[in-house]
Amino acid sequence: MSLKYFFNPASVAVIGASSDKIKIGRQVLDNIIGGGFKGKIFPINLKEKKIAGLKAYPALEALESKEYAALLVVIAIPSQFVLTEIKKCAKLGIKNIIIISAGFKEAGEAGKALELEIAHVANMHHMHILGPNCLGLINTWHKLNATFASSDTATGNTALLSQSGAIGSAALDWLKVKDFNFGYFISLGNKAVLDENQIIEYLASEKKIDLVVAYLEEIKDGEKLMSLISRLVKYKPVAILKAGQSAAGGQLALSHTGSLAGSNAAVETGIKRSGAIWLENLEELFNLLLLFRKESWHNRGPQELSVVTNAGGVAVLTVDEISRQNVPFGCSYDILGDADAKRYEDILKKILADKKVNNLLVLLTPQTSTEPVKTATAIIKAAKKYPNKLIMTSFVGGEAIAEARDMFEKANVPTFDYPEEAVRSFKKLIMYKKTIDTIKTYKKPSVKIKKVITDTDYIKSLAILRDYNIPTVKTMKYENAKAATYKYPVVLKITGPDFLHKSDKNAIVANLKNEKELKEAVRMQEMANKKSLSKSENYFVVQEMASHFQEIILGFKRDASFGPIMMIGLGGIYTEVFKEIKLETSDLDFKRALDIIASLKIYPILNGARGQKKYDIKGLAKALVNLARLANEHPEIQEFDINPLFVFTAGVLAADVRIIV
Amino acid sequence: MSLKYFFNPASVAVIGASSDKIKIGRQVLDNIIGGGFKGKIFPINLKEKKIAGLKAYPALEALESKEYAALLVVIAIPSQFVLTEIKKCAKLGIKNIIIISAGFKEAGEAGKALELEIAHVANMHHMHILGPNCLGLINTWHKLNATFASSDTATGNTALLSQSGAIGSAALDWLKVKDFNFGYFISLGNKAVLDENQIIEYLASEKKIDLVVAYLEEIKDGEKLMSLISRLVKYKPVAILKAGQSAAGGQLALSHTGSLAGSNAAVETGIKRSGAIWLENLEELFNLLLLFRKESWHNRGPQELSVVTNAGGVAVLTVDEISRQNVPFGCSYDILGDADAKRYEDILKKILADKKVNNLLVLLTPQTSTEPVKTATAIIKAAKKYPNKLIMTSFVGGEAIAEARDMFEKANVPTFDYPEEAVRSFKKLIMYKKTIDTIKTYKKPSVKIKKVITDTDYIKSLAILRDYNIPTVKTMKYENAKAATYKYPVVLKITGPDFLHKSDKNAIVANLKNEKELKEAVRMQEMANKKSLSKSENYFVVQEMASHFQEIILGFKRDASFGPIMMIGLGGIYTEVFKEIKLETSDLDFKRALDIIASLKIYPILNGARGQKKYDIKGLAKALVNLARLANEHPEIQEFDINPLFVFTAGVLAADVRIIV
Repeated sequence: MSLKYFFNPASVAVIGASSDKIKIGRQVLDNIIGGGFKGKIFPINLKEKKIAGLKAYPALEALESKEYAALLVVIAIPSQFVLTEIKKCAKLGIKNIIIISAGFKEAGEAGKALELEIAHVANMHHMHILGPNCLGLINTWHKLNATFASSDTATGNTALLSQSGAIGSAALDWLKVKDFNFGYFISLGNKAVLDENQIIEYLASEKKIDLVVAYLEEIKDGEKLMSLISRLVKYKPVAILKAGQSAAGGQLALSHTGSLAGSNAAVETGIKRSGAIWLENLEELFNLLLLFRKESWHNRGPQELSVVTNAGGVAVLTVDEISRQNVPFGCSYDILGDADAKRYEDILKKILADKKVNNLLVLLTPQTSTEPVKTATAIIKAAKKYPNKLIMTSFVGGEAIAEARDMFEKANVPTFDYPEEAVRSFKKLIMYKKTIDTIKTYKKPSVKIKKVITDTDYIKSLAILRDYNIPTVKTMKYENAKAATYKYPVVLKITGPDFLHKSDKNAIVANLKNEKELKEAVRMQEMANKKSLSKSENYFVVQEMASHFQEIILGFKRDASFGPIMMIGLGGIYTEVFKEIKLETSDLDFKRALDIIASLKIYPILNGARGQKKYDIKGLAKALVNLARLANEHPEIQEFDINPLFVFTAGVLAADVRIIV
Repeated sequence: MSLKYFFNPASVAVIGASSDKIKIGRQVLDNIIGGGFKGKIFPINLKEKKIAGLKAYPALEALESKEYAALLVVIAIPSQFVLTEIKKCAKLGIKNIIIISAGFKEAGEAGKALELEIAHVANMHHMHILGPNCLGLINTWHKLNATFASSDTATGNTALLSQSGAIGSAALDWLKVKDFNFGYFISLGNKAVLDENQIIEYLASEKKIDLVVAYLEEIKDGEKLMSLISRLVKYKPVAILKAGQSAAGGQLALSHTGSLAGSNAAVETGIKRSGAIWLENLEELFNLLLLFRKESWHNRGPQELSVVTNAGGVAVLTVDEISRQNVPFGCSYDILGDADAKRYEDILKKILADKKVNNLLVLLTPQTSTEPVKTATAIIKAAKKYPNKLIMTSFVGGEAIAEARDMFEKANVPTFDYPEEAVRSFKKLIMYKKTIDTIKTYKKPSVKIKKVITDTDYIKSLAILRDYNIPTVKTMKYENAKAATYKYPVVLKITGPDFLHKSDKNAIVANLKNEKELKEAVRMQEMANKKSLSKSENYFVVQEMASHFQEIILGFKRDASFGPIMMIGLGGIYTEVFKEIKLETSDLDFKRALDIIASLKIYPILNGARGQKKYDIKGLAKALVNLARLANEHPEIQEFDINPLFVFTAGVLAADVRIIV
């Protein structure tokens, strides 16, 4: 069922409304009334007859209007009473509910059980419930502020989602001083029923919204998220700040939200795959909002960033950052320290008439002849004249430029405290524009389970690879009697559950030149590993030696939320040293595999740098695609590593494997 | 001669003072008067008798007071008249001058010549001249504002140096709104005479100053700078923002300042060697000032950063940044969303009583029960009670927390817009504290010129290395007649001016197993390089093959400002790929060399990771130290590369060299 009435209810009831102005329920009621909501408003209170000048009702069933399907119910009463109300809603056919109340999953086991029961009722009756433990919902287009946070913004085109009420309220407060008008504000809370996916799905078709910015602490269904966003970003940017990106932060998030998030690396890989703009912190989030405040961000011409300045030094620092961020740079126009507003006006006229200049950062520091306010007026005028060019400003200083900054905010011209913030935000913008052109919709790979693999035996694991057209080094179970028949030189390995990390266990002996050396090596290993080798699952294998290859590591690890995360990187002794690893979701095709390989630092070597030989990049890409297919078709395999994969000038060979089911 | 009277003059004369209030000279005069300067003030103006209520003088020689040695003269007249005044000053025995006027080096060749002449006069007569093309000087302790920028700050302990007037005035404006009191403000301008080194030398002995922050666009004498700062940072932190860190930015800086700066890499290496805090942009500079505003930053106990928060999500983001910055983390205290001021007060009491908590970041987002102002009061009280603990704050929001932020600024409690800024600034602080303990004073290495090397011949270059106890691979000039006597396998190379990059020229043939293969290789190379080999300076060499080594690149490049910059990194095919290079100044000793090697990513491999063999790290360190000695003793050598240097389990061998004199 659509969320249409959830976001645009015909009427709103507030359970927990009270004449006590301190009560959260009353604050919500006041905000709904004060926001100018046009529908009917029903305060619900067992004892009181009139609240905030409105008739109060003892219970939902007492409302005169019976249009329950278009009613939004906001619940702000102690948690122990909430379930009863939800059940009542279910009985009455009420579908849209916000539970503001806290005291659920975040409060311990009892709360968690209660929340699960609520979710169960909601799912049985196809009810939409936001929260619990949330700030509520604002829809400025519908003049609905169903939160306990004050907000007096006009309508806007941005939707803000926040899993944290605290960050949500901080954002609302910040947006107010920045004169930033948004369309929707949705505090997700515990996400017992509604989560980011359902909200984003709705916002995709909401024409009033052209930018979605979300703060999330956990993502339960990453594959669904990737599928939704990768479709959406083609016409609306989505930016996500995921808390808990570090191990320590993730640990804290776990204790804070009470829910297990996917692994950090998988989340980052998945969100980047979705095409969403990846944010690292609050500053980036707020700065991105500043950048997107003007519609002109989506101009599609040349993407160089040019700079106008009255301070050479500030321009140099700006170009330093442009360079660090690898942003295409246009030109820097230094109109000198004594530039007045007129000189700014003149240069803007000249530059903006140039079709090649689409993106301009205007810098100013207050000096003797500087006229910050007049200059701001000139810039705002120019921005209006060129609505399709992105004009950003950074006036560096304090008192002298404060009024100019306010003017920019009121006029919707992106303005930043420091030029480097403008540059970094701009970088995100041009990356996003590249995404629009290149993104492919994520489709959850179809799972055709062939046979369920439960055996992690080494020789069988190599056989699985060959089933998926990934060739392997010729590998035989060692037999004393056959030692004379091997093609020397050979490598001797011990495989099995006691030898998952063979190098660490000294369980690899390379370069054995003849039968005698091999047998001697076997004897030495047997002495050293008597106990392990007494178990049949640990045994010797012999592999033919190869040479003239590049060592690559290839593998995947399954994430509960984002599916199999593929890995490719530098193998051999430098793997741990340089951690040259790229991750990607398992929906990759041959072209994408080639792109990933080309993004590796060692690509020049694979590609034959400085007149050296070229390695079989296509063969490597095929191996990666085939391994992804294996990952998709065997959901029972949790991890699979090929390390090393030998890449030759022609062909590849898996030389060692490790599988975890 | 000391700068005592320059910074603390008994009287000030302003050449260019005028009754026209728009004139820069008049603005300077007004600022001197308005700032409350206690000494005599002499406006100098040919025609006027009285300016700003003070008696005016037609010329410097007309002053009744003859204490010229303690007089500061500020010059703000068109550039073409400045030299005459300087000469007059010289004649009168005036030593201390500020030239505000622009129109010198930054304005083209004529201005540059004029500036050189002024510098010449100044040096002849031991005069101190600040500028030209600068804002001037403020010394709040002396109530002297000899700039044309307004400033009403009380006394403080920070000295600010800015080579850019524009950034200087932006900083003054910013400091005002932040209620940040400083001690000295020095606008360096063109640095015709006084530069950062002389100023820093003076500030080192100025007890009122305990922090030096500088914005620089070029550093002429980097070795002097390193020597001064490396001594100073043991008791006073110095932070430097050097503009033009990128290639593009450096290019812009060049056109902006009209002066050639040292190479970016050399500047960064040198400033870091000096122990100065390295800043990347204005945001970092301003945030560092915020952090240092409270003296408590120099507490020397445990350095973990702990966090108090009323918003779990913000704490998670903060810990993410703590983790990214590799800052030692203490504990996070989540006092929940409904925390009032009392709860903040209580937790602060509890935590701050703990001796292990020395550094605390207090976070707040405005929620329903939040009391930002009362909470700020409680924090300020706690900060006063524990003057030796560093208490930082970050209240995230807008209107609701604006007053609290102001209170922190007035009370000198570091407060940041976003928690990640606090964390990043704190990281710089703990890095600096480490510097205090480890810094060694930089001494310009003494140069004992042995013999001047002018020859870049390959075999002779190898011999120079051996003179400095760096062993080399056995290398012989190829002789057809001796081919039978070589110890095979060998490598054949062509050396000489046409073969500086041998690999690119395919001028290396490795693994020649016998005389026949060698002679065949020689024949093939002769065919391919007929023309080059006809010149005697290009010739064949033969080297014995080695094996079982790690390839390292070792070298140096001489910087005009910072001296020889040593380089060590991963050699071989991965050099270009991973750019794993560390730079250091040439005053390094054996211990420092070991530290640098240990900081390389490939260190674990050199040190025998995962039970593998160890390479000769000490031998490598010795080679680096010896190469540094070579660099110091041969100032005529501009560049010297050893690539590769073979590092064995015992010993090292230089296998190839490139020298530029």
